[in-house]
Amino acid sequence: MPRMRVAQLTLGMTLRKQLFLLRDKRVTTTRAGSLLLHVTLADRSGAVAGVYFDVPAHVPDSLVTAKGVEVAGRVAEFRGQMQINIDRIVPARLPDPEDFLPTATRPLEEMIGEFEALLASIQDPHLSGLLSSVFDDAQTHKAFCRAPAAKRYHHACVGGLLEHSLAVARLALAACEVYPQLNSDLVLTLAILHDLGKIHTYDPISFDRTDQGSLWAHVYLSASLAERRMEELPDFPAELRLRVVHAILAHHGRLENGSPVLPMTLEAIVLADADKLDADARGAIDHLARAHGDSSSFTEHSFMHETRLYRGAMESPGAAQGEERP
Amino acid sequence: MPRMRVAQLTLGMTLRKQLFLLRDKRVTTTRAGSLLLHVTLADRSGAVAGVYFDVPAHVPDSLVTAKGVEVAGRVAEFRGQMQINIDRIVPARLPDPEDFLPTATRPLEEMIGEFEALLASIQDPHLSGLLSSVFDDAQTHKAFCRAPAAKRYHHACVGGLLEHSLAVARLALAACEVYPQLNSDLVLTLAILHDLGKIHTYDPISFDRTDQGSLWAHVYLSASLAERRMEELPDFPAELRLRVVHAILAHHGRLENGSPVLPMTLEAIVLADADKLDADARGAIDHLARAHGDSSSFTEHSFMHETRLYRGAMESPGAAQGEERP
Amino acid sequence: MPRMRVAQLTLGMTLRKQLFLLRDKRVTTTRAGSLLLHVTLADRSGAVAGVYFDVPAHVPDSLVTAKGVEVAGRVAEFRGQMQINIDRIVPARLPDPEDFLPTATRPLEEMIGEFEALLASIQDPHLSGLLSSVFDDAQTHKAFCRAPAAKRYHHACVGGLLEHSLAVARLALAACEVYPQLNSDLVLTLAILHDLGKIHTYDPISFDRTDQGSLWAHVYLSASLAERRMEELPDFPAELRLRVVHAILAHHGRLENGSPVLPMTLEAIVLADADKLDADARGAIDHLARAHGDSSSFTEHSFMHETRLYRGAMESPGAAQGEERP
Amino acid sequence: MPRMRVAQLTLGMTLRKQLFLLRDKRVTTTRAGSLLLHVTLADRSGAVAGVYFDVPAHVPDSLVTAKGVEVAGRVAEFRGQMQINIDRIVPARLPDPEDFLPTATRPLEEMIGEFEALLASIQDPHLSGLLSSVFDDAQTHKAFCRAPAAKRYHHACVGGLLEHSLAVARLALAACEVYPQLNSDLVLTLAILHDLGKIHTYDPISFDRTDQGSLWAHVYLSASLAERRMEELPDFPAELRLRVVHAILAHHGRLENGSPVLPMTLEAIVLADADKLDADARGAIDHLARAHGDSSSFTEHSFMHETRLYRGAMESPGAAQGEERP
Amino acid sequence: MPRMRVAQLTLGMTLRKQLFLLRDKRVTTTRAGSLLLHVTLADRSGAVAGVYFDVPAHVPDSLVTAKGVEVAGRVAEFRGQMQINIDRIVPARLPDPEDFLPTATRPLEEMIGEFEALLASIQDPHLSGLLSSVFDDAQTHKAFCRAPAAKRYHHACVGGLLEHSLAVARLALAACEVYPQLNSDLVLTLAILHDLGKIHTYDPISFDRTDQGSLWAHVYLSASLAERRMEELPDFPAELRLRVVHAILAHHGRLENGSPVLPMTLEAIVLADADKLDADARGAIDHLARAHGDSSSFTEHSFMHETRLYRGAMESPGAAQGEERP
Amino acid sequence: MPRMRVAQLTLGMTLRKQLFLLRDKRVTTTRAGSLLLHVTLADRSGAVAGVYFDVPAHVPDSLVTAKGVEVAGRVAEFRGQMQINIDRIVPARLPDPEDFLPTATRPLEEMIGEFEALLASIQDPHLSGLLSSVFDDAQTHKAFCRAPAAKRYHHACVGGLLEHSLAVARLALAACEVYPQLNSDLVLTLAILHDLGKIHTYDPISFDRTDQGSLWAHVYLSASLAERRMEELPDFPAELRLRVVHAILAHHGRLENGSPVLPMTLEAIVLADADKLDADARGAIDHLARAHGDSSSFTEHSFMHETRLYRGAMESPGAAQGEERP
Repeated sequence: MPRMRVAQLTLGMTLRKQLFLLRDKRVTTTRAGSLLLHVTLADRSGAVAGVYFDVPAHVPDSLVTAKGVEVAGRVAEFRGQMQINIDRIVPARLPDPEDFLPTATRPLEEMIGEFEALLASIQDPHLSGLLSSVFDDAQTHKAFCRAPAAKRYHHACVGGLLEHSLAVARLALAACEVYPQLNSDLVLTLAILHDLGKIHTYDPISFDRTDQGSLWAHVYLSASLAERRMEELPDFPAELRLRVVHAILAHHGRLENGSPVLPMTLEAIVLADADKLDADARGAIDHLARAHGDSSSFTEHSFMHETRLYRGAMESPGAAQGEERP
Repeated sequence: MPRMRVAQLTLGMTLRKQLFLLRDKRVTTTRAGSLLLHVTLADRSGAVAGVYFDVPAHVPDSLVTAKGVEVAGRVAEFRGQMQINIDRIVPARLPDPEDFLPTATRPLEEMIGEFEALLASIQDPHLSGLLSSVFDDAQTHKAFCRAPAAKRYHHACVGGLLEHSLAVARLALAACEVYPQLNSDLVLTLAILHDLGKIHTYDPISFDRTDQGSLWAHVYLSASLAERRMEELPDFPAELRLRVVHAILAHHGRLENGSPVLPMTLEAIVLADADKLDADARGAIDHLARAHGDSSSFTEHSFMHETRLYRGAMESPGAAQGEERP
Repeated sequence: MPRMRVAQLTLGMTLRKQLFLLRDKRVTTTRAGSLLLHVTLADRSGAVAGVYFDVPAHVPDSLVTAKGVEVAGRVAEFRGQMQINIDRIVPARLPDPEDFLPTATRPLEEMIGEFEALLASIQDPHLSGLLSSVFDDAQTHKAFCRAPAAKRYHHACVGGLLEHSLAVARLALAACEVYPQLNSDLVLTLAILHDLGKIHTYDPISFDRTDQGSLWAHVYLSASLAERRMEELPDFPAELRLRVVHAILAHHGRLENGSPVLPMTLEAIVLADADKLDADARGAIDHLARAHGDSSSFTEHSFMHETRLYRGAMESPGAAQGEERP
Repeated sequence: MPRMRVAQLTLGMTLRKQLFLLRDKRVTTTRAGSLLLHVTLADRSGAVAGVYFDVPAHVPDSLVTAKGVEVAGRVAEFRGQMQINIDRIVPARLPDPEDFLPTATRPLEEMIGEFEALLASIQDPHLSGLLSSVFDDAQTHKAFCRAPAAKRYHHACVGGLLEHSLAVARLALAACEVYPQLNSDLVLTLAILHDLGKIHTYDPISFDRTDQGSLWAHVYLSASLAERRMEELPDFPAELRLRVVHAILAHHGRLENGSPVLPMTLEAIVLADADKLDADARGAIDHLARAHGDSSSFTEHSFMHETRLYRGAMESPGAAQGEERP
Repeated sequence: MPRMRVAQLTLGMTLRKQLFLLRDKRVTTTRAGSLLLHVTLADRSGAVAGVYFDVPAHVPDSLVTAKGVEVAGRVAEFRGQMQINIDRIVPARLPDPEDFLPTATRPLEEMIGEFEALLASIQDPHLSGLLSSVFDDAQTHKAFCRAPAAKRYHHACVGGLLEHSLAVARLALAACEVYPQLNSDLVLTLAILHDLGKIHTYDPISFDRTDQGSLWAHVYLSASLAERRMEELPDFPAELRLRVVHAILAHHGRLENGSPVLPMTLEAIVLADADKLDADARGAIDHLARAHGDSSSFTEHSFMHETRLYRGAMESPGAAQGEERP
Repeated sequence: MPRMRVAQLTLGMTLRKQLFLLRDKRVTTTRAGSLLLHVTLADRSGAVAGVYFDVPAHVPDSLVTAKGVEVAGRVAEFRGQMQINIDRIVPARLPDPEDFLPTATRPLEEMIGEFEALLASIQDPHLSGLLSSVFDDAQTHKAFCRAPAAKRYHHACVGGLLEHSLAVARLALAACEVYPQLNSDLVLTLAILHDLGKIHTYDPISFDRTDQGSLWAHVYLSASLAERRMEELPDFPAELRLRVVHAILAHHGRLENGSPVLPMTLEAIVLADADKLDADARGAIDHLARAHGDSSSFTEHSFMHETRLYRGAMESPGAAQGEERP
């Protein structure tokens, strides 16, 4: 059997010697006393949970996260999510490690191109200077382009943060056309920088939250990073600095969502709403995509949306119906 | 003195025989027993409150709302809002009534053009048919193009509903480019129809809420109107009907905001967030514009945004101030 | 063994060839990969969950919901709820299908009699006409008298909606005696119509929510149905129409409970509170009745009441104690 | 001019030597430095606010609350509420003090008769004994029959507490017919006792909250009073005592409304919902009755209902409309 | 194997004939039909859960709570909590029952000494008299010194209530130094009495909530007990009585936390905040202490704190990690 | 008349040529069109509002905030707060400006002494180094010792921030004795630094919020300042830095209070609760102190405590009153 990508796995499939990246591992004990190994197996096309029942005690320690593993088992399902029931898992060398990192839907190169064009489009010399001072640092540039934007699901991929930031920028750009009062250079700068702190919030391989990400939160991290860069720029206007840090702090829109201040400028308001639109929409697209193999016309509960989502009538999946949802 | 438009009034100005449309009137008694007449005076350029202290008892009854009045008085201010202190007010004939109805910022003709183009762009035959069945009725078309979208402020103008609907449509269109999964015909149809019930929610002259608007709410009115039109269309797909009514019902995004259901489809989610973005942004633009003649760098409290808004540094942005912010 | 009714099942009982209606079925996979069939088995006396461990793969597909099944297994318990552990389940013909539909506590005939008397008692010609226009339609009449009022528990039975509507009507009638200001014809009409939309909200056999029930919600459905009937009546007073639709929309009492408007008329207020009283009381009666076989003086948590309910002191269930709770 | 009762006052009326009970008085200073005397003037038919502008400094001290006053002034209006603008106010002897205490709508004698019948109807010897031990005390009986149930509006009258308690009892009785599971003796006892602590919560003349009423709250006071009486009864069953105190503590239905526990028994649940129904309905009846002399179809905002209430269409108060609201 | 204390148990340890106190027991049925016995096993050093799979049907009934048991089994883990998988459990006589009751961290004698000193330090004769009237009753004194302060965790031990009350007293004493306006005798009396009702709220062995504890809540119980004692004292000042009961009622600080009134005196405010500080801090100390054997730098979710707690960096706190956090 | 200090002013007093510091000024227009000048007049002993009715138009501009004024007028009251009704106000030179700045209750020198001792008591070299790096800067030291901690009331004084920080430190120190698990050096450092950002949040003379204070909030400012100082210290442990910034960010205890993260460490929890205790207690002390000249036993509503506060029985605490409270 040739190598199967995660996205190609289907229920009931038997795996012999499949290669995956081991994203994380955890051992639990059942009430009855036997050991379970829980892993996340990943490649470029996605990630899937795996469980090894009655795992021999030496196995978990033999595995190293962020390295390759070879797995035998069967593709099953648990609570509506796909899961590999593992029979055997051993360390393995990955021929092309790049091929095992999950990536965003959009090609990374394309997104980086759009990102560079966006940076180049900023005409305000101060904001342009700020962005340069952040992204001229090759390490930050790379981290920003590769960081995930969340621990789970779609944005839990290489390029997730970039994809989200670009989506917010596009929506903000549309808003600029509707509301000429918006300072477009400012709102685009904010679209790029508002989640910058996420480069320190998630582990680049396991996508787990870092301690700093949990204890400081990315809202603070992003604001603090931006504030420091602006301080280092000789003539950065105090007024503009006030507005940049404010909008980053306020971008979650409500105190109970973790913003220490409410949006008080037009740019901060548009940033917060565009950020919410992208999160809600992308989250819905992913949640709908994960629903499968079930005859219900609704998905499981989506915690982000606080409700189940509607997948469409299931009974007669005929042509006419298909047309309605292009 | 030539006729002054509302937008031209400035603090301290004395008015002799100014013509306005009387939008509404209300009489109160002061604690000390004298009568006060409160009016809203309007023309194409905007609206302004007026107060007549110790008004002679016969005056209020002599005035008819939605008709012209001639006013003498002085432009003053009360709690940060402009107000005309009236010395005399009598009925008057308006030479060109159209000139006394406040209108949206954008020219009505331009908006109607954009609206027609939008209607024409819908390719799904069922949705296109639905829109035709609604707007081919000349009365509905006119009501929709002229209705206000709110009782107060910006959207309290002829064309306010249309301007808001077009803004939501533009934002939704941008979202369609970011998320190809969106059914663009559906989301644009929803942008147009989601507030349709507002044509029955506000009085077309006083912009007061109608009894029906208060007791049924525009969310219900819009959904019910759309449902009935779809029922009358012979082959309208049941599935699509489900989605249209659902998204209209859900467009306030949260139960506590008056939507009886949460958004459960991608189109309903994008509609709700785009509606919120336009309301927040437009509300901020207007709130900032109303602040004037005051040296504070913040506006009064904005109830919509639950905070004051930032107008920018006001005083001499000199060195001393800069020192405070390291 | 003669046929056992659901209400007669007791823990530990062994079933050989018991007949039930199959209300619904669902297949899941355990973490360890085996198949589980979950079913709801019902007859006139109630419904009970069933589970078939390691069900052969062909069994689930052989079963048809809303048809009869013959079951062998044992009556067990899971998390405080009775459950049949199934050893065998096959399709079967039900000799008297009527006997397998769970029904309300009160005899259906008795309730229909009370309902007819209630309809006949309405003297306002417009409201009487409205009710006729709704219930003269035999299909609606039948659907209303047979629909459940909820997916689970007591009201999940044939006649559940009718029983609830009659209870609300009785409470409203008592309120009319206390508050002569109430329009009694109106409040009784509302008691009957406020949940009318539930005839489209639940599947008549599985009692599952329909797509329309989830996406539109019964508050909207009821209001929209009533509005349309009133529109078709030639002389129905506009004022009365306003009040009927308003009260139906407002009957959940609070925006966060899914009413798009708050109750603003006396009748709407009494309707909402009487509806809440019946839901709370009936829900408590059922929750207490389901608690069994456990020595705790409290039930499990009741999500409707947001607390556990008190069953009474358990230790010495003597005579004195019994007297206290007649 | 003969003596006018409060209920007979109409806007614009001039008063010469009218007698009232002085319910309370308060002196404030205007921003401009003059003194204002605020009083509440009352008689059997109701209460009305009065204001004395630039009151001579010796006047306030000459007046004694809970005694008679003679007033000259004019009936005006302030913020939609009637108000007497006072020109002169002096102490006066009331010929028949009883005639100056506002009373409930229902005749006190009739209510006391209903109350006695209710007490006599309780058959459970323990509950009957509890009620006797409370109300055989003549002072408590009198206090209970005369206490107000609130500081303002309808229930701010002699007999207000009794009227409310009887209304709750009637609603509970109706519930007993709908739900035979209810212990009717218990729920009626609770209807009578749940607000007993209000006899210590409001001043019997000014209807102001007492310190104890503010610091302990009537929920606690009622429960504590009932607990003590039960303790003194030799054989009162412990289980029943648990239930009585619990239901009194829980009768506000939600923690945020001041109940330290949620209702956990059927009787507690029905008590809480019936209490809410009477408060909501009575509050609406009073709020609607207070609205007057205004052409709006809605009342002012009702804080209890968190919304304005609908008074009915105002434009054409013709026959047809009258028919709709008998 | 000598007797192991609960605190000495480690994962994987095998137990042969270990003695424990049986705190409580509960039988459930698995979905597959077998019986599970759940017990809480305790000694002076702590408590641990135990599970007996497929327990023979006669075993549960042979065991008596609050008596000794002899257990064989293995120390395992379930969901991050230690658990004994039981192979055999039989009744047994405890040689020294005192040695099997879990106790507070601080020695009981030391705490009682501090408690006596605290009582002696109260100089206000009325408050001192109140405390005497409560604690001169030997049974109350003993119950207070031995009662737990919660069902679970740290305060679920003999002396838990005393330890909590002393901690609150110490914090209140510190507050007295910072705010000389505080009545120190009053606030210390409140620290001692505010949770007095907990002696009736928890079973002294199983630490389960009593029916009274659930139905009346300790806030009410404490206030009612204190009110009655003060009533019995001949000259207790009415004003002081008002303040004592008020502060006890208000000590949960917010209505939604079960206080029927908000704190309105300085002493009530300080009591509520000191109570919260001790609960939060002690809860965090215990939650952190229970986390073990896991490489995560965060604990499981703490429901009291509504978040996970930070345990500190776990992995090699080396250079690489430092690099991630600039 | 000699100079009267603010604290010596009493109702009705007439002022001739009193010197004050002008803290702020604001001009409004009455509805009737006349100008009002609102000022805050202050000296070392406190601050008082002043109003100048029909102020001549040139007066407001002649006055300079943070400079001296000479005032004539009368001491009146408005809504329960003292207010000077101004007849004349002119610029004036203050002989000893220091004497016109309101100061904390505790002598500044005493507090600075305590502060220095506190700094010296920190033994952890890193935390000690951090504090040195902050406070060795003379400007920061001075700003910290003189900044107010709030815009209004007690903490609106020179030394208010210092007084609050010391109070939190004392409470934290008491907590260290109760919970030996606390890192006392860390919690004391946090007590000192948690509100450091307030030196940039309030204007040092007018005590108005700065733009930065409103847009960034002091929670962010304090965390960002501390983070930067730690970064500059060569060997500051990463783990300790994580904890310091975390606790500062979390010190408002709840997201809805403006903390972007919840407290997750013991020190952060104790800091948040001690901060709340000082705010609540100090706020109550001040609110009670401001109530005066009124016979009510309760204060006006305190927004901080969401209730009125109890001042104690006011009237003749004689027998009659006792009777009301059994």
